[in-house]
Amino acid sequence: MADQGPFLTSCIIFYLSIGAAIFQIIEEPNWQSAKSKYVLEKKNILDRYTCLTKEDLDNILEIVSEAAGQGVTISGKMHTSAWDWSNSVIFAATIVTTIGYGNVAPKTVKGRVFCILYGLCGIPLCLVWISELGSFFGDRAKRLSQVLIGKGVTVKKVQFICTALFLLWGLLVHLVIPPFVFMSLENWSYLEGLYFSCITLTTVGFGDYVAGVNPNITYPALYKVCVQVWICMGLAWLSLFFSWNVHMVVEAHKVLKKRRLRHKSV
Amino acid sequence: MADQGPFLTSCIIFYLSIGAAIFQIIEEPNWQSAKSKYVLEKKNILDRYTCLTKEDLDNILEIVSEAAGQGVTISGKMHTSAWDWSNSVIFAATIVTTIGYGNVAPKTVKGRVFCILYGLCGIPLCLVWISELGSFFGDRAKRLSQVLIGKGVTVKKVQFICTALFLLWGLLVHLVIPPFVFMSLENWSYLEGLYFSCITLTTVGFGDYVAGVNPNITYPALYKVCVQVWICMGLAWLSLFFSWNVHMVVEAHKVLKKRRLRHKSV
Ligand SMILES: [K+]
Ligand SMILES: [K+]
Repeated sequence: MADQGPFLTSCIIFYLSIGAAIFQIIEEPNWQSAKSKYVLEKKNILDRYTCLTKEDLDNILEIVSEAAGQGVTISGKMHTSAWDWSNSVIFAATIVTTIGYGNVAPKTVKGRVFCILYGLCGIPLCLVWISELGSFFGDRAKRLSQVLIGKGVTVKKVQFICTALFLLWGLLVHLVIPPFVFMSLENWSYLEGLYFSCITLTTVGFGDYVAGVNPNITYPALYKVCVQVWICMGLAWLSLFFSWNVHMVVEAHKVLKKRRLRHKSV
Repeated sequence: MADQGPFLTSCIIFYLSIGAAIFQIIEEPNWQSAKSKYVLEKKNILDRYTCLTKEDLDNILEIVSEAAGQGVTISGKMHTSAWDWSNSVIFAATIVTTIGYGNVAPKTVKGRVFCILYGLCGIPLCLVWISELGSFFGDRAKRLSQVLIGKGVTVKKVQFICTALFLLWGLLVHLVIPPFVFMSLENWSYLEGLYFSCITLTTVGFGDYVAGVNPNITYPALYKVCVQVWICMGLAWLSLFFSWNVHMVVEAHKVLKKRRLRHKSV
């Protein structure tokens, strides 16, 4: 720790600073123009409807803002409840997987207290389950490699095949194919689908895109279940991948350190 | 896996079903009343401002909804940018820690692509850093126990003291004290502060409460930095705690399994 701690800390600080600058450069103009457009449109509304004063409009917006804060969809029709059982299952799943989209969130005191307790028990349970699922897939890969070795394939080739299959599976099932499904069922663009997949499977979960909750779309039966299963399989895949990835980073760092030490001693 | 996999899977399914039912019971009435209130208020607005037809109001709400979708605050004044550098740092930090509040999220194609790449590199880096930080705190605890043992305290007492200090630190610094700080600086109730702490430190991050981003509050200097440091320390504490907790669950399960086997063989 005395060696790699400060190095890692400065890495993180540097990474955050640079990332923030890039995000600011990319996103601020878009936000500024959206804001200006909104200010202009508010002015247009006041010009068009002369019975509305500026205070009246502010009051209306306050009402809308409060409703939005309570999780009510502010425009369009709303036939389905935000808290029916199937949506509640999705919500509970977002807690225990720590994705936490936040498109629905408890607003009552009771709900919040239960949410805290639910997470405290559910998150470790889900962690254990996901890692079990990951090691289940790992076992399948091991069995495949044993079968291949039994058929006389060299160990190096088997390792290559297993790694390639593992990466290909992840790439196809969790990145390349799902956006096409979302394109046809959620009316998102390919990039939006890809963004949703990445943000979900890394458990970041911004909640700007959530699959299966658009009240204006009638989904096929079992679609919501499939999405949940897909998320869990993705997390299991990632738990295998990340443990391997983090392991590689640590190993690479050790190699670098050894080289540095050897360099010094020479 | 052949033994505990199906058991864990049924546990998760049961846990989600029950949790969803409880959330539905608690939250649906509140959502229903908020929805009815909103419908009523929309009707009141139409009654009060006779120059507005239903279509006009729907158009206005569409405009408001679109602006909200672009991350513009729809009511109140907005002096500060959602994407200034300090907010961008907070945003970048929510990606790499996988908290992902989603109160700000990239809206441009470029921003989304960068966000995906940024997370892919940043999340493993942050994971390694957090676990390093955790083991740093673990080392301090070990050193403390060595000092205590050197002073002639028995090993059992030292273990008890270290565990108690560890739990007390977590309880005070990450659960009991922060809500008081948020009460005074963010105007939240104690429960809201506690809810924010729990939702943040479990990295669920719904984003309904985010510290340091209210545009109507002038925060003390360094407050945002303190919040970020507090979050990182909390995650490090939890990485220690959860590794210990998950370990305990697995151990308890093994003990149960052994007992069951012994029971069967008797
Ligand atoms: K999250
Ligand atoms: K989130």
